[in-house]
Parts: sequence; C-alpha cells; structure tokens
Amino acid sequence: MADLKVLGICGSLRKASLNMAALRACGELLPPGMALTITTGIGELPLFNQDVLDAGMPEPVQRLRAQIAAADGLLIASPEYNFSVPAPLKNAIDWASRAPNQVFQDKPIAIFSVVAGSLKRTRMQYDLRKMLVQLWGHVLPRPEVFVANAASKFTEGRLTDETSRKFLAELLAGFKDWILRMKKT
Amino acid sequence: MADLKVLGICGSLRKASLNMAALRACGELLPPGMALTITTGIGELPLFNQDVLDAGMPEPVQRLRAQIAAADGLLIASPEYNFSVPAPLKNAIDWASRAPNQVFQDKPIAIFSVVAGSLKRTRMQYDLRKMLVQLWGHVLPRPEVFVANAASKFTEGRLTDETSRKFLAELLAGFKDWILRMKKT
Amino acid sequence: MADLKVLGICGSLRKASLNMAALRACGELLPPGMALTITTGIGELPLFNQDVLDAGMPEPVQRLRAQIAAADGLLIASPEYNFSVPAPLKNAIDWASRAPNQVFQDKPIAIFSVVAGSLKRTRMQYDLRKMLVQLWGHVLPRPEVFVANAASKFTEGRLTDETSRKFLAELLAGFKDWILRMKKT
Amino acid sequence: MADLKVLGICGSLRKASLNMAALRACGELLPPGMALTITTGIGELPLFNQDVLDAGMPEPVQRLRAQIAAADGLLIASPEYNFSVPAPLKNAIDWASRAPNQVFQDKPIAIFSVVAGSLKRTRMQYDLRKMLVQLWGHVLPRPEVFVANAASKFTEGRLTDETSRKFLAELLAGFKDWILRMKKT
Repeated sequence: MADLKVLGICGSLRKASLNMAALRACGELLPPGMALTITTGIGELPLFNQDVLDAGMPEPVQRLRAQIAAADGLLIASPEYNFSVPAPLKNAIDWASRAPNQVFQDKPIAIFSVVAGSLKRTRMQYDLRKMLVQLWGHVLPRPEVFVANAASKFTEGRLTDETSRKFLAELLAGFKDWILRMKKT
Repeated sequence: MADLKVLGICGSLRKASLNMAALRACGELLPPGMALTITTGIGELPLFNQDVLDAGMPEPVQRLRAQIAAADGLLIASPEYNFSVPAPLKNAIDWASRAPNQVFQDKPIAIFSVVAGSLKRTRMQYDLRKMLVQLWGHVLPRPEVFVANAASKFTEGRLTDETSRKFLAELLAGFKDWILRMKKT
Repeated sequence: MADLKVLGICGSLRKASLNMAALRACGELLPPGMALTITTGIGELPLFNQDVLDAGMPEPVQRLRAQIAAADGLLIASPEYNFSVPAPLKNAIDWASRAPNQVFQDKPIAIFSVVAGSLKRTRMQYDLRKMLVQLWGHVLPRPEVFVANAASKFTEGRLTDETSRKFLAELLAGFKDWILRMKKT
Repeated sequence: MADLKVLGICGSLRKASLNMAALRACGELLPPGMALTITTGIGELPLFNQDVLDAGMPEPVQRLRAQIAAADGLLIASPEYNFSVPAPLKNAIDWASRAPNQVFQDKPIAIFSVVAGSLKRTRMQYDLRKMLVQLWGHVLPRPEVFVANAASKFTEGRLTDETSRKFLAELLAGFKDWILRMKKT
C-alpha cells in the first residue's frame, strides 16, 4: 500500500514561524506508512474576491486546491491572531471551499498550535474546527496539542524539546489511525 | 459641534457587493450630526505577514489605520464566508490591531449584514463581535440588523426596500446615541 | 447482528415539546437495524453541584449515565435557549462527563433542532457540537437538519410534514453509516 | 449619592468554591461608592421548564429576578464546565431572561474566573459574554481577569495572593467607571 499523503499547512507566513518549524519536525516524527509534504501556497493567494474568481480561478488557487484534493489528510499548524484564525489561513479556506469540488469535504484533518506565551491559544483551534467541520471535514478529536512557551523549545529553528516531540509523534500516530478509520470502505 | 465621523467598511471586495450598496444607502439615512465616509482600503492590503510588518508598515495599512483612528465610529457591513468573518475583513483586523496604537481600542462600532438567502448569517456577526470586543472596541448591542433575501430589495444596486431602509435608519440613530454615550467625558 | 441501539435525548423539558415530538417521529423513520429509546432522564437530575457528586453520585445521574454508556449512538434534539444549549441539556452534560468513565468518549452522536420561527437556531448546534467534540464524541457532520416554522408541520403533536420526515429519515440513515464507520474494528 | 449596588453571582454551587471565595474578597476590595451583595439564589432554582413557568413563576426565580433587577451592576465569578458556562449559571440565565421584563437588558456586567490549573478557561468567559451581550447586557470589556493556579492563592478559603487582589481591585474600579458611563443620562 502506498504511503498516506499528508499535506502540511502553516497559518503564519513568517519565514521563522515556529509553527512552520514544528511542521518540519513532524516530517521526522511520522509513523511508518505516512509521508508529509508542506505547502507554502497559502502565501501566494490574492485576497478572496468573488469578482476575481468569476473571471477565472487564479493559478495559485488552483495549485493549492489540487494539493489539498490529492492529500489523504491535512495537518494544520497555526498561531492565533486576534482570538481566531489568522487571515492568511482563513483566506485559503475561503478560496479552497468554493464550488466546484469543495476540497475539504470528507477530508481527515489534524490541528495543532505553537504559541509563544503560556496561555494556550485555544480559540484558533475551536474556530478553525468549527469552519472545517461545517465544510464536512473530519477533524481529529484527540489528542489536543499545544506547544506553549515555545521560545525555549526550539534551537536554531528546530524543535528540540523532547516532550513536545513526543506529543507531536502521538498526534501523528493518532492521525494515521483516524485517516484509516475515516476512509470509505 | 462638528459632525460625528463614521467610517464605513465592507467585508466583501466584490464591486457589486450588496453589503457595499447597503453602506451607500446608509449615507442617505444618517441622522443629523453624522457624516459617513466609506473606505475601500481593505482590498489594497497585502496578506498579513509579520515579516512584512517588521520591514516597515506598508502604505495601504498606514492609510487604513489612519482612517480608523480618525473616525468617531466604525460601521461594518459584511457577508459571511464559511461560517465566519470574510478573509479580507479578518486581514484588515489583523493589520489594524498591531502595535503601536491598536486602532480599535475604545472605538464605537456598529455591524450589519446583507445576505442573499433567507438564513440569517448570524455567525459572522458573532465572530466579528467577539474579535472586536476583545480588542476593546465598543460594539453596539442593538438593534441587530440583517437584510435577508437581499436580491429582491435592491434595484440597480440601490437599496429600495422601505422596511430595510427603516431598519438601517434605526441602527444609525441608535449608533449615534451609542457613540455619544461611549465618548469619554 | 443485534440492532444498533440509539438513545434519544430532548433538550427541552416541556411536555408538548416539538423537539420531543420529532424524536418520536424518528422512531418511525429508522432504517433497518436500528432501535431508538428516548430518555426523559435529564429532567430528573439535580442542578450540577460537585459537593453532591462527592457525597455519592445521585441515582438519576447513575441511570442516565448507564443509558448513555449502553447506547451505540446518541440522537439529540433540542431548541436553543439564549443563543446556546438549554440549561437542562448542559446540566446533563455536566453530570455525565465527570469521571470515572466519561460517557461521551468515542460515542457517535447526531443532532437536530426543531424551531418555532423561520430563523434557524444554529448557535445551539454549534455550541453543543463544540462541547461534545471536546469530550471526544464523534458528532455526525452531515446532513445538518433544522425543522423551522415548526408549528405548521405538526398535527396533534405528530410530525406530519413529509419534507421534514424525509430529512429526518436521511439523517438517521446517515447516522447508521456513521455509527458503523466509527466503531472500532 | 447612594452607593452603586453590585450583585455578585457565583457559577459554582460548591460550598468551598474558590470563585465564591474570590467574590467575598471583592467585598473587601471595592472602591468607595460601591456596595456588594452576593446571592446564592441560583442554587435554589429548578431546572428550566417552560411548563413550570407557564404555571406561575416559581418563588426562587422571582427572588433572583428581583435581585438582578434592583442591582446597578452584576459581578459574575465562574469556573468553566465542559468548555462553556456551568449548568447552574446557564439555568439562571434561562430563567432570568424570560419575559416580562428581561432583567439583563441595559445592565452593566463584569466577569472573572478563578481556575484550578494553569490553563486559563477562556471559553466560559467568551460564551457567557456572547449570551449576555445578546441579551443587551453591557459587559465590561477590560481588564480581563483570570486567577489561575488558584490553590496556592487562597488560605483557609480567603484570597491572600496580593497580585490577584490587586487585579480584582482594578477590575472593580474599572467596573465602577463602566457603570457610571453606561447609566442613561
């Protein structure tokens, strides 16, 4: 059986984003039978505008939609901006959810967050979950992973904290089971 | 006393947006002592990216922030995209809320929505309210205005439905009282 | 194979509750291989109080927990009170979710609402979904069923509107597939 | 001028509730010109049932409604149960919000939470705020007060942590200004 293809999406466009660094760490922590590709495509999208869509779906949107459609599952890592989903991530959802073939439908999805402070930014996860469930995505219910107080857990852009790596490895193992469980038989 | 300056912001970038058309109608429905300017500046912003901000606040962001800072109140009209705030509007919030001088603080704000169907898109209003309240904006609690089944209420891009115009006029009168009430004495 | 056991729970304690009437209609609309029992146990619970729990789990709580634990799935019909989950239903969740053996874990759940007016009371469903997902329940993502303008659809406490009955039958068929899909193999 | 009357409401019915202990501490931390009375009336209410209401508003409900109606402001301290408002508090809202004379309308309200762990239970505050704002209450936007890791901050049921007492004193001072600002002139 071919590896399960997971597409990683980071909600922050910052080059040194710790969420992106944690996504890269996930590539090292996958269970057997899974492969991770990380997209930076959400940063290339224009702001959502129905007029633009009506004139023809922009190429960066087509590329991102094709990547999502081809994946067996999505792994989303994101900070919280203003108590909700960062604009670049919401923008990707607004583009990718349009007809035809809304690409989140029946797609297994796992979410985690890396946050700078000690306050877990739970609202991003709940709002994102709310949107994706309404788009009929299947969001993994557990484990719920936050990497808080992040600065001390990364060394030169690499996630070195062993506890965090263990949590992410558990998330990925659980996500593999979830993808297999949600696959239509 | 000078007129209270209200800045209108539309959550949709569509040229023929009915929310924008309703904002224009608001300009005709103001009580005495209020003046409305509508900005299209949110469509000119780049996607939020902290790296871009660190390199210097982009000009379109500076312009929008100055417009918000100068206003006595904000009047936001917006559709709902994917059960929450449209990406262009969230993007404007993500840019305008950054330090220094977070521009929503202590700002009176009124919200309404024009929706195509019969289902009132209440989630946009609740999510938007949640964000703005957390940014210490003062969101007018009532009346709660939705213009549903919108297509039949506009004629050549102009809001012609008398009931809807009456609701908007009440919203604006209430908003004037709210701005005066929230002004620091 | 034995029938899948579904436990029906109504969020309203009103005797003539239309949500309860719709639950009864569900009993007539089940696909083969499913059996529905409706509990009225949530009305017998005391208000949640940790002191009471510490003194020994009250019998009505024990009974409701045992009913939930024994079910293959939960079918919840509820009105919306004050923009969220009715207190009696939240109270049942607060009691049933306590250790030991939190009874919502890994439980398939379907939700629908009967509402008096034309405004679909979507917030109850979203808040309820948020709670149950955090308790690791598996809430059926679709179809999303609201029976609006309910008064005209019931005759002497019986759901007689054919369109509504068809929607509920589809919900139940989808729920059966969902229960089978979520069963651990 | 008579003192501003503040009614304290605790979302937990536990005798040794730390939220209740913090409410009592608030009585010692009030600015001049405010008086605090704490109600335990929410624990005496039956579960909300429209049939019961139709048969005549129960006496404990009448008492609580009269207390709320007579107050210049409400001070609500509450834990979070299952990611939202505790059932006893939601139950009080469901009873107190019914016609006639919905008692939250135009009422200034301040909210804070005492939580056992390090994770601030932000969802209770947001859900509670959402409900009360929709009932046209005026919820104080800031400061946002959480007393986390509570066990170490109380001595024999008394809030002894100086930092927490300072935060609560600031909340109360801000609440006094808010009540005065929201009073109709």
